[in-house]
Amino acid sequence: MDATPLRALTFDVFGTVVDWRTSIAREAETIGRRHGLTVDWMAFADTWRGLYQPMLSKVRNGEMPWTKLDDLHRMALDQVMAQFAINGLSEQEIDDLNRAWHRLDPWPDTVAGLTRLRRTFILATMSNGNVALIVNMARRAGLPWDAVLGAEVARHYKPQREAYLTTAALLGLRPEQCLMVAAHNGDLAAARGIGFRTAFVTRPTEYGPGQKTDLVAEQAWDVVARDFVDLAAQLGC
Amino acid sequence: MDATPLRALTFDVFGTVVDWRTSIAREAETIGRRHGLTVDWMAFADTWRGLYQPMLSKVRNGEMPWTKLDDLHRMALDQVMAQFAINGLSEQEIDDLNRAWHRLDPWPDTVAGLTRLRRTFILATMSNGNVALIVNMARRAGLPWDAVLGAEVARHYKPQREAYLTTAALLGLRPEQCLMVAAHNGDLAAARGIGFRTAFVTRPTEYGPGQKTDLVAEQAWDVVARDFVDLAAQLGC
Repeated sequence: MDATPLRALTFDVFGTVVDWRTSIAREAETIGRRHGLTVDWMAFADTWRGLYQPMLSKVRNGEMPWTKLDDLHRMALDQVMAQFAINGLSEQEIDDLNRAWHRLDPWPDTVAGLTRLRRTFILATMSNGNVALIVNMARRAGLPWDAVLGAEVARHYKPQREAYLTTAALLGLRPEQCLMVAAHNGDLAAARGIGFRTAFVTRPTEYGPGQKTDLVAEQAWDVVARDFVDLAAQLGC
Repeated sequence: MDATPLRALTFDVFGTVVDWRTSIAREAETIGRRHGLTVDWMAFADTWRGLYQPMLSKVRNGEMPWTKLDDLHRMALDQVMAQFAINGLSEQEIDDLNRAWHRLDPWPDTVAGLTRLRRTFILATMSNGNVALIVNMARRAGLPWDAVLGAEVARHYKPQREAYLTTAALLGLRPEQCLMVAAHNGDLAAARGIGFRTAFVTRPTEYGPGQKTDLVAEQAWDVVARDFVDLAAQLGC
């Protein structure tokens, strides 16, 4: 890495910090069981998440006004429930299911790695998740963020450059003082494009056992790590 | 207090959470000693802080564009240094002195009280300090914030209503689910005006032994506490 001292690590959250797929499947199954529903809950989670990028695209291209992720998740959930013929849930149960995204579990190495990294570096989120979602998740999972920033504060979804630039500016840092940490090559490419340093952390089962994408680093990122504990070791923490 | 469950506590920081006066005097004295300067450092701190509200007013009334507090502090510092005939500091030393606001000490009860309160409530800052200032202060002082929000994120300085409303909205909460905690009656009046619940914490030496203002609650705030540990006790934490 270059000689500018690194000051902050900024983290993608969904997939990189937490395992959304098995968490969403578990939460949905819990609610579904009460209603005697038989559904492939992993497929349910995949389908729900599958509506994510198309919805973000509509906000990014101006087809939809700024809408926070909780509300996009809810619009997507209504579609997915129809598709899986899930009926009979109360409004409160549907809202609770939508907030399953606030209750995602970290990967096994996440808390240990973040705890080590935080001794040396400022840790901030750079997620498309809204602030309340990330705050509630952090309290439940014990994620030691110094600041919850990213898309909602910038009112731009990644990979739009404003999301990265606003986050660095709020931290009082230049992009090259920040290391973007993500399990997604596209996120890192956008961050590198505006001057962030980059760390790829492999999460080979984010999309389940048959995952085809983001299995390897597709560029020479500044750091390539197996997990957050390995990242901490490579950064000398 | 009313029956709506309280979810978050939002905190004024300067004076309420940290003792800016003795911290600034100590930091300035340390730098001044290197240059053999003899200055009344408490008076220096009071004068620097005295320029705060007039500068914020210029931003609030549109005379000045949005300017973050680090930059307002620096403009004020240049004036105060001239007034106290402080010369011979390098640009790096002046910048370091300006960042003394990132190194303020908490009151003795602060960390213990916040730690107890955080078990039950979301803790967010609602400060006019910029995000980097509050993040750096929190890391040094061990302040366990769940989120650093307030003026810079809202791009409005308190007591403008947007600062309070934006912070509640980012937490995904209605104002009545939030308790504004401050040692300043004016801050609480503004928060109450848009629906926040209010807690007054007395900080009778914020402005030194001769403090004349904010010694008592000037309205029937929802909670009046001696310090943060007392606040935690009164909230059942």
